[in-house]
Amino acid sequence: MKPRKIVVIGGSAAGAKAAAKARRLDQKAEITIIQKDHDLSMASCGYPYYVGGVFDNRSALLATPTGVIRGPEFFMKTKNIKALIETEAVGIDRQKKLVHCRSVQGGADSTVEYDKLVYCTGASAKVPPVQGIDLDGVTNLLSMEDTDFLHQVVKEKKASHVVVIGGGLIGVEVCEALANCSIEVTLVEMAPDILMFLDPQMAKLAANHMKSKGVTILTKTGLKAFVGEEGKLAGVELSDGSVIDCQVAVVATGVHPNNKLAADAGLAIGKLGGILVDKYMATSDPDIYAAGDCVEVRNIITGQQSLAPMGDLANLQGRIAGENIVMGNSVTFPGTVHTAICKIFDFAAGATGISETTARKCGFDAIETVVNASPDKPGFMGAKLLVSKIVIDTKSSKIIGYQCVGNGDVSRQLATAAMAIQGEMTLDRLCCADLPYAPPYSLAIDHFIASAHIVQNKIKGRLKTISASEVQEKVARNEKVFYLDGRGPDEYESLCLGIGEHYIPLGALKGRLEELPQDKDSEIICFCKVSLRGYEAAIVLEDLGYTNVKVMEGGIMAWPYQREK
Amino acid sequence: MKPRKIVVIGGSAAGAKAAAKARRLDQKAEITIIQKDHDLSMASCGYPYYVGGVFDNRSALLATPTGVIRGPEFFMKTKNIKALIETEAVGIDRQKKLVHCRSVQGGADSTVEYDKLVYCTGASAKVPPVQGIDLDGVTNLLSMEDTDFLHQVVKEKKASHVVVIGGGLIGVEVCEALANCSIEVTLVEMAPDILMFLDPQMAKLAANHMKSKGVTILTKTGLKAFVGEEGKLAGVELSDGSVIDCQVAVVATGVHPNNKLAADAGLAIGKLGGILVDKYMATSDPDIYAAGDCVEVRNIITGQQSLAPMGDLANLQGRIAGENIVMGNSVTFPGTVHTAICKIFDFAAGATGISETTARKCGFDAIETVVNASPDKPGFMGAKLLVSKIVIDTKSSKIIGYQCVGNGDVSRQLATAAMAIQGEMTLDRLCCADLPYAPPYSLAIDHFIASAHIVQNKIKGRLKTISASEVQEKVARNEKVFYLDGRGPDEYESLCLGIGEHYIPLGALKGRLEELPQDKDSEIICFCKVSLRGYEAAIVLEDLGYTNVKVMEGGIMAWPYQREK
Repeated sequence: MKPRKIVVIGGSAAGAKAAAKARRLDQKAEITIIQKDHDLSMASCGYPYYVGGVFDNRSALLATPTGVIRGPEFFMKTKNIKALIETEAVGIDRQKKLVHCRSVQGGADSTVEYDKLVYCTGASAKVPPVQGIDLDGVTNLLSMEDTDFLHQVVKEKKASHVVVIGGGLIGVEVCEALANCSIEVTLVEMAPDILMFLDPQMAKLAANHMKSKGVTILTKTGLKAFVGEEGKLAGVELSDGSVIDCQVAVVATGVHPNNKLAADAGLAIGKLGGILVDKYMATSDPDIYAAGDCVEVRNIITGQQSLAPMGDLANLQGRIAGENIVMGNSVTFPGTVHTAICKIFDFAAGATGISETTARKCGFDAIETVVNASPDKPGFMGAKLLVSKIVIDTKSSKIIGYQCVGNGDVSRQLATAAMAIQGEMTLDRLCCADLPYAPPYSLAIDHFIASAHIVQNKIKGRLKTISASEVQEKVARNEKVFYLDGRGPDEYESLCLGIGEHYIPLGALKGRLEELPQDKDSEIICFCKVSLRGYEAAIVLEDLGYTNVKVMEGGIMAWPYQREK
Repeated sequence: MKPRKIVVIGGSAAGAKAAAKARRLDQKAEITIIQKDHDLSMASCGYPYYVGGVFDNRSALLATPTGVIRGPEFFMKTKNIKALIETEAVGIDRQKKLVHCRSVQGGADSTVEYDKLVYCTGASAKVPPVQGIDLDGVTNLLSMEDTDFLHQVVKEKKASHVVVIGGGLIGVEVCEALANCSIEVTLVEMAPDILMFLDPQMAKLAANHMKSKGVTILTKTGLKAFVGEEGKLAGVELSDGSVIDCQVAVVATGVHPNNKLAADAGLAIGKLGGILVDKYMATSDPDIYAAGDCVEVRNIITGQQSLAPMGDLANLQGRIAGENIVMGNSVTFPGTVHTAICKIFDFAAGATGISETTARKCGFDAIETVVNASPDKPGFMGAKLLVSKIVIDTKSSKIIGYQCVGNGDVSRQLATAAMAIQGEMTLDRLCCADLPYAPPYSLAIDHFIASAHIVQNKIKGRLKTISASEVQEKVARNEKVFYLDGRGPDEYESLCLGIGEHYIPLGALKGRLEELPQDKDSEIICFCKVSLRGYEAAIVLEDLGYTNVKVMEGGIMAWPYQREK
């Protein structure tokens, strides 16, 4: 039997993984990677950290853990894979099973034969259709070239002020990187909030942390033009006509799948612009597979197609494609729950599953959510705050979403929730989950389990809550509400909302009933630092006959608006 | 209707939680906690950290996050719960529904009526039946009194050498606490390894870390007697007759459920000595519930009864009991997967589900396991090592166990695995799990997912492995094996096993075939730092016709025995 010819277009995450997996399963195959860039298997998620000076060794982005550059020689020597770098695939002839290639450096054109083709062309930056986009100083952070440019900006202090356009994961990571290098940073976001995978309250908490680190954030703000002199960027003009002076602008307004080659070859493309693949990662042509940022992925919760350009998913998909092209369709990729995490200075923010916003948009009409604020471990072990939001589908009683922000151990919370969602666990089960507990790592009742307890209390009708945003609207409208903060004076002197609240410590409540509204139908909203004492105060008040008592979710710690102290 | 009388015996974790939950559901009930100790709701898992000087404020163990001591006044004022401290329940009259109490300080006896009783008496130290156990200087670390004693030992430098008897969770935590305070510590363990919930290889890695911090560990060593002069401990005599001089000994040989009161009252007691409860946490008397360290719990994986004296489970069970006594049997406790974690200096060790040892003991005859060593995040982000072992039931294809040790983020790995086990996820699903990925938190292919990939390769017959212990036995027996370390000279000069291995870097393998055994049936064992290159070398060798090639699981980093460098 002649050796199988496997060709992989794209040698970053998915492509390199598919090729390596295929090799492990077939030592005889002729495997070729066609890569437009000079580099292979780049750790692209690490770019912001190199820019921000977390490490100084550029080659760490391109090398194995032992320091060997993952170049063509490495691929040939250790994996017997031929990697054609600086080579662009410009056409696929599906009849003749050929890939037409062009040398980026101007060398001769070539063709490569395939029996099985894996298409891993990744995604490219969305380019805002504005003037000045080509000015010197306007960049993305998607390639080694972009990375080298921004690294130089930092090293050589080429900019005192940088504007970042787009408040998604990369935009936020770039803000952190540059602000950590003492560069003034302004983040411009068209939407009302940054980090759109979070619900507004959670996103505002993340934004507050960025602001506390000196980043200026302009939301609901569009980009009108990049303005410059002699080809060089001098400022960013915003939708309101104002101009921010800056020397560098980073465009991070998202990516779209690189689908042209596939579309030209007649492969099926989805509505979102990604290549359509089945659960085996096969395209509409059974000899062509695709993986990574260029494909559409099934959202496991909604069942809908989605784009999920994430490095981890690219690797997992590449592994599936690599196995199926060698072994026949035998392993499947189930889809994504859109798990994401992002470091923001001393803080982290992330989500898994779907947000309340997405759930409602997708027609989940029976959901319940709650915002929970509590420490990640005991105070005596150096507790740090976590604020999370859990989304339960009350029809199935399953968890379908979880978001977490804070300076505590967000990573563990999200990993816990991601598995709970993928394990299709019910709320009752989460309420009794057996998680790793010891004081250095968690509270006896882990923050995640506490979140489940609170939303269960809510679903059972034992806890009536109100969100911070609803409270803020009531305050703005000057509604007649009795706000009850159940903390003591030593606490409210250092931290308080200042919305006209009354301070009656929980333990003193029953002795100070005369301070409460005498009309038992008055609206009373209880809270405290995290609203646990607020909850217990509400139970007392209801027992006293008050009929309209609510607890503000997450208390002061989850309040994303300005407060008095 | 007369208010319901709820009595809770025991005011530590489970008891305090049950009482608080009952109160939230019933504002009218008369709720009484009967607590033998002076303190209530102690953060007992925090004792080692107070002893070790992680924090200096004793009352942090007894106070709310805002610093209020959880004493009788707190329980009365904030929860309307009567807490009778220093009061011992000495008898239960189930006919008359009375609890007979004795004042610890010698006051008058009393009786308390109940409609519903919750029994949360906890567990007590197993006392080794040896001479000298009553000597001054011999202690446990289970009470505030023990804690105060050890804290004083540290503060006042009352001991230069402490012997810890028992290498379980508490024993190991005590070792860390004391060693961190510059006290010489010897850990004595009867079993062949410490931390019995781990399989031997994993336990040895944890022990190695303790030894590297100066702790002396004597395994397979029994305790003969405590020896002393004038009532004061002077040394510990071991089973081999040797005596270790020391001024303090901490006995941490496990606990047994406090079942006497329940047994005397005729409640059903299990074979392991714990009170038997159903899924509602009800005992054999429908008006008496029990929760916490005094009960037997169902092991969800084996279906067998077990003891699981853990603070987190006590809280969760207390919550279930508290709800059911008020609402009628409505919520259930599913059992435990025995999740545990333990900080060991810069290292952590833990497990969830069942170990290979337990699985085989319980008759799981179709399991597959693998040991995986890999970093927790990219090298450029300050990667730290994780070594884990995954246990798959190949009949159901589900994950039933996971252990992890290392100085990386063990907590997240265990939380991930605990949820995967409780979500009854299959191996295929784990191999494509969507977990929170960003370079500050994980690798693109998370360590947990990589562990799943490796065991999947093994189950599919693509990877033939051998454990470190089997290799060590072969070395000890001087078996004729060709050991192939697939790393380069710059690596093996700083780290190597020294078992007679041959160094042929993976990339050079095909050019140096003459160095390999010429007999294709020779036994060849491949490895490298973590055995990824060892795996790829094995694939190459098999393709060359070698018939007896294995990969040593986890490579050098998971090797728990002495090595050359």
